[in-house]
Amino acid sequence: MSRTMLLLLLTMPIPVFAQQKTNENLLQYVKPIIGTQKMGHTYPGATVPFGAVQLSPETDTIPYEMNGKYNPDVYKYCAGYQYDDKTIVGFSHTHFSGTGHSDLGDFLIMPTTGALQLNPGTASDPGSGYRSTFSHSTEVASPAYYKVKLEENNILAELTASNRVGFHQYTFPASGDAHIILDLMAGIYNYDNKNVWTFVRVENDTLITGYRQTNGWARTRTVYFAMTFSKPFYQYGHQNYVNNVYRGFWRKFDQTKNFPEMAGRQIRAYFDFKTTAGEKVKIKFALSPVSTAGALKNLRTEIPHWDFEQVKRDGEALWAHELQKVVIQSRSREEKENFYTAMYHAFINPTTYMDVDGQYRGLDMNVHQADNFTNYTTFSLWDTYRALHPLFNIVQPERNADMIRSMLAHYEQSAQHMLPVWSHYANENWCMIGYHSVSVIADAIMKGNAPFDVSKALDACITTARHRNYDGLGYYMDMGYVPEDKNGASVSKTLEYAYDDWCIAQVAKKLQRMDIYEEFIKRASNYKNVYDASVGFMRPKLSDGTFRKAFDELQTHDQGFIEGNAWNYSLYVPHDPAGMITMMGGKRAFSRHLDSLFTMHLPDKFFAETEDITRDGIIGNYVHGNEPSHHVAYLYNWTGEPWKTQERVRMILKKMYLPAPDGLGGNDDCGQMSAWYIFSTLGFYPVCPGAATYQLGSPAVDGATLHLENGKVFTIEVKNQGDKNVYVKKVVLNGQELLNNQLTHAAVMNGGTLIFYMSAKPDKRG
Amino acid sequence: MSRTMLLLLLTMPIPVFAQQKTNENLLQYVKPIIGTQKMGHTYPGATVPFGAVQLSPETDTIPYEMNGKYNPDVYKYCAGYQYDDKTIVGFSHTHFSGTGHSDLGDFLIMPTTGALQLNPGTASDPGSGYRSTFSHSTEVASPAYYKVKLEENNILAELTASNRVGFHQYTFPASGDAHIILDLMAGIYNYDNKNVWTFVRVENDTLITGYRQTNGWARTRTVYFAMTFSKPFYQYGHQNYVNNVYRGFWRKFDQTKNFPEMAGRQIRAYFDFKTTAGEKVKIKFALSPVSTAGALKNLRTEIPHWDFEQVKRDGEALWAHELQKVVIQSRSREEKENFYTAMYHAFINPTTYMDVDGQYRGLDMNVHQADNFTNYTTFSLWDTYRALHPLFNIVQPERNADMIRSMLAHYEQSAQHMLPVWSHYANENWCMIGYHSVSVIADAIMKGNAPFDVSKALDACITTARHRNYDGLGYYMDMGYVPEDKNGASVSKTLEYAYDDWCIAQVAKKLQRMDIYEEFIKRASNYKNVYDASVGFMRPKLSDGTFRKAFDELQTHDQGFIEGNAWNYSLYVPHDPAGMITMMGGKRAFSRHLDSLFTMHLPDKFFAETEDITRDGIIGNYVHGNEPSHHVAYLYNWTGEPWKTQERVRMILKKMYLPAPDGLGGNDDCGQMSAWYIFSTLGFYPVCPGAATYQLGSPAVDGATLHLENGKVFTIEVKNQGDKNVYVKKVVLNGQELLNNQLTHAAVMNGGTLIFYMSAKPDKRG
Repeated sequence: MSRTMLLLLLTMPIPVFAQQKTNENLLQYVKPIIGTQKMGHTYPGATVPFGAVQLSPETDTIPYEMNGKYNPDVYKYCAGYQYDDKTIVGFSHTHFSGTGHSDLGDFLIMPTTGALQLNPGTASDPGSGYRSTFSHSTEVASPAYYKVKLEENNILAELTASNRVGFHQYTFPASGDAHIILDLMAGIYNYDNKNVWTFVRVENDTLITGYRQTNGWARTRTVYFAMTFSKPFYQYGHQNYVNNVYRGFWRKFDQTKNFPEMAGRQIRAYFDFKTTAGEKVKIKFALSPVSTAGALKNLRTEIPHWDFEQVKRDGEALWAHELQKVVIQSRSREEKENFYTAMYHAFINPTTYMDVDGQYRGLDMNVHQADNFTNYTTFSLWDTYRALHPLFNIVQPERNADMIRSMLAHYEQSAQHMLPVWSHYANENWCMIGYHSVSVIADAIMKGNAPFDVSKALDACITTARHRNYDGLGYYMDMGYVPEDKNGASVSKTLEYAYDDWCIAQVAKKLQRMDIYEEFIKRASNYKNVYDASVGFMRPKLSDGTFRKAFDELQTHDQGFIEGNAWNYSLYVPHDPAGMITMMGGKRAFSRHLDSLFTMHLPDKFFAETEDITRDGIIGNYVHGNEPSHHVAYLYNWTGEPWKTQERVRMILKKMYLPAPDGLGGNDDCGQMSAWYIFSTLGFYPVCPGAATYQLGSPAVDGATLHLENGKVFTIEVKNQGDKNVYVKKVVLNGQELLNNQLTHAAVMNGGTLIFYMSAKPDKRG
Repeated sequence: MSRTMLLLLLTMPIPVFAQQKTNENLLQYVKPIIGTQKMGHTYPGATVPFGAVQLSPETDTIPYEMNGKYNPDVYKYCAGYQYDDKTIVGFSHTHFSGTGHSDLGDFLIMPTTGALQLNPGTASDPGSGYRSTFSHSTEVASPAYYKVKLEENNILAELTASNRVGFHQYTFPASGDAHIILDLMAGIYNYDNKNVWTFVRVENDTLITGYRQTNGWARTRTVYFAMTFSKPFYQYGHQNYVNNVYRGFWRKFDQTKNFPEMAGRQIRAYFDFKTTAGEKVKIKFALSPVSTAGALKNLRTEIPHWDFEQVKRDGEALWAHELQKVVIQSRSREEKENFYTAMYHAFINPTTYMDVDGQYRGLDMNVHQADNFTNYTTFSLWDTYRALHPLFNIVQPERNADMIRSMLAHYEQSAQHMLPVWSHYANENWCMIGYHSVSVIADAIMKGNAPFDVSKALDACITTARHRNYDGLGYYMDMGYVPEDKNGASVSKTLEYAYDDWCIAQVAKKLQRMDIYEEFIKRASNYKNVYDASVGFMRPKLSDGTFRKAFDELQTHDQGFIEGNAWNYSLYVPHDPAGMITMMGGKRAFSRHLDSLFTMHLPDKFFAETEDITRDGIIGNYVHGNEPSHHVAYLYNWTGEPWKTQERVRMILKKMYLPAPDGLGGNDDCGQMSAWYIFSTLGFYPVCPGAATYQLGSPAVDGATLHLENGKVFTIEVKNQGDKNVYVKKVVLNGQELLNNQLTHAAVMNGGTLIFYMSAKPDKRG
């Protein structure tokens, strides 16, 4: 076996076909196009599970800001693609899936013919630049494969990818003037000065290397590449759009044409070919967080050949392997499309962030070696701690452990000595609030999926949670809440810190660190400090101990909350629903309160200010498109009305997830929305990550089989399933009736059979 | 032995005191202040031989350009220091020695007390900023040590250095408000946007790491650092002068104070201390071309303690070791000062460019491992191929071989597939002309100092010399000369290409590559193509084969030459003086021509346009301050008038080199001017590097002993020496009279005794 092949085997998860779990081709149900219209912020391009490369079309060039001012139109382009657009600008190699803020879009490639145009042109006049019109009728988006006809120049574009290598295949018409454009100025959430530096070397007539360094959401981010063509170009060149290159001695060359080194802040390069009719020009484009040498190694290791179909097949096999972990029975094709697309979206992030040899760049900008783990990045933790990482603890336990190892490496490398908040590409971007890494860590430890140094992990949690300079945390530690006059979104922060602190307390108790337990279990009750009994909501408190006078429980902005209003966010005490319910007036009052949430009408003026969701993302005043409410439907389990949970969950599943481009009612948020769908469809949900139990809801499928990495099989049977039979009459686990609406994690992981007996009538016994 | 100590031993040249060559303390004669006034462009600060760190004061903040326009005042500050200035801005860690263009000045450190001032202020009003007045009376500049009193705040500043670590020692007055400023905006030849990015991390209360990335003479240059204080600061902060940091989520911190991560384009940081009277605050500041981890490793390996005096002593020992390689006898202290300062200046460049573990950054921006050699940078080859590298082949043969290995690594990593022209810090800056790497390589090979792959080296020379896109070379290859209408400075280029080609031919012949020999020996005669017999000068020729009409043999600018006029540059045929003399009318005519050069008066209007030299740098129209004439005084050896060579050489030595701040008549040019001095003072000179012979001149010393690395000793005795006895009557090598005014390299390296018999009367026998 060659060294290259050995490396390949060591670094790529190889699907084990011998263990095929179903004869059905589950890939047929995955529709990457779901969520690409409106607010879903997903992308349709090619990627493999947790892959470093997300090779996908950009449909416009809307900048984040122009002349220093924020441009609200950019928001639609978090993933680069908007379904309603009529043109494609090109295909770039990095994309977030479902975020509500953005970055990336590195290394835009576009094939053209005819007179060279180095500007992208405008959507209203595609002929003014290198962009092309396209039609959804020629578009195919499936796992690890994307295809579209670029109409302007009659070029068929096909994309596939391995983990670290994007593979382009462009079928050209006959042309004496064919071009491949490499636009290093392009980017998602782009703006003047976002490019700090770009650097390109033409190594020979088929190989290009270089990097792009940006100052964006990630403050100091560099992505390296190696790009190789299937046939030699006959000439090349570039334009440097900023005259910022030192007026020195490079002038002795004509650098614009056939000059192998290009460097500057704003560069577009081109490579020229002559093509025959139907000729395929292929490009392998590898990324690295470390160096161009690393990118080249990735390229040669992962795809040492030019067989596009083989790479596509390999990618599809990787997806099939992941999708088969949960085989559902359903009579509805739409449900299968929703479910497997949710599985697909759930298995995109976090993304691989290391070379095939285990080298990666840390937050200290040094190169580190990942010893016996895969280093991941793209941690949208405020979203994903809720259901995505709990899902991983069931169906991706090894990867989840590696994600935690990556988070601990982040902590070690962080100048702030903090676990990640929202991190990508060796950067902390500090987006959103809380320190929910501790939830992910606690969830893994409490569920027994912790093959890492748990004592060190606890220390990292403690240090993070004692970081007085972080986002009002010093006040919180001193006063038991974040005062709104000192630090905004103070209620959200207080509530989330309290939950995170509960997580730390659980781990501390498990590790017999009782002093730590006492410290943090005390902090965990801080949620009570921001409850105003006089109004029945959580409410911003000031540093003088009084509640702020101005208060609007429907308003989202400037009310002490972030991405939520008092109605939604006041329910955020996942670690102590019973205590919260008592505090809020007891079960009956709380139940009425919840009912109101789902049935009231949110006036349009408030909706207009709600972030990240469409009108469809709201049921009454319940906002599913944002995460703080994701546990809310399950709270009826604590009011003795599980039938209301069952009803609401099924309603949300139906209303919020549709197998269409606009089928997602809010940002998918790196898979959190999808993870909610997967759990709830299967009939249970992790209301409180860090506790090893799930709340039972109402399964939407006819049945499901979970093929676990430990070799066990957990089967869900649903008796008397039907659109109207949303109520659960009885739940039996391995022959034993479950009476408390809970399922333990151990029960799932030990394998066995869970049977739901459904009914059209609610079981109101409580 | 600890691993650290072992590394130290492996990576530092340790002076072998057992082999002490003289009892005299030669360091006393080194005056780093020589050349710091006017045009010398040397710096007075602390460095060790060929050290990566050059820790030296900056005396002003003159930018290279303002608002996009060149600022001619900047030229004086190539080395950061000008003797006439009254203030010191701070102490930075990287400096060129003697260049006529510049860059560097990385990481300016300044100690202050009182109210914090983060701006440097102006020379006319030092109180307006952190700079301080100083006086030469408190200044000590000696090898590896610099001291000065900063008057404003009564702080004594002392500097020393190891190879990769600058060591600062600041003696403070009592102060509750003492500061160390780290200015990342400061730089030599600085301008808006020169900083591409800077990045700083406060690792703990004594350790800082970071980097500075610039776009200057080096287009893409990053220097990493690790900086540690001898006592903890009690607070710190920074200011970011460009609001270019993404308006994102970092705002949740007050980043200006006690926030451990700073990043942006324009940053100044400060660290605050409380000091008692006379308290010393020390800083160790390590550099790395690779990473902050590399810098930290360098720091801990090279200086694992806080003993300033020890580091100073170690540095002085390194210098003593180098200086002792040539022990001169002279009755003149001034001559000793000139000589050992020249030795000092000759042994500063090229500089070490790798970490203690052998890692360095290549031109491809990848990290490479130097296997069994020291990687060097700062190759000012248009200057140094003439005498500095030939000098190294005698007294630094191992280092010279490593320099060539570094040049070959540069070639391997170069996108242009060329050997270095003028390179620094993993960048080719393309300054000046020719491809004189081939001369350095040929000189080493022809002199038998080539412990590298000579066949590969020849291939690199050939590829470089066939690079049609380089600086008129395509025309030269096709037409036998560079046409002035196609490419300026065409005569200089034609002449230098022809010489370089001769070098390649010599190596090809030695390696029996006769096809290559034929190709390049033919090209070596191309100098004849630009000689215009009708005017008796080399003259710009046009692409139609005619000489350009406009011609002024005194003018330097736009006459087909660079840094020289037709009078000086027409004599540049070092590989065939006899052929040139025949071409120019024979020995007598040529002798008269040379006489005129030295005795004519160059009108002021021409001098004003002469670059890089002072009026004192000219004798008649002979310009010693620029390099193209450095061999000229020796040409009388070919006219049968060696006595004129002897006379002129002694005159130049006397006029052009004075042991005073303004003692250098032109830029020292990374040691080339000094190397000329060393050779000529010893009585011989390498007129044609690539030939293993030296031309004899007139020694200025009473005698000299060369202690060679091969263990041999070469002794020069000078009989009847005297200021007026500048003429050589007889030269005897090991008892055998030398009759051809030549000395072979082998004769030197084999050891032995060369005796010059001097006389006040010229020996006109020819």
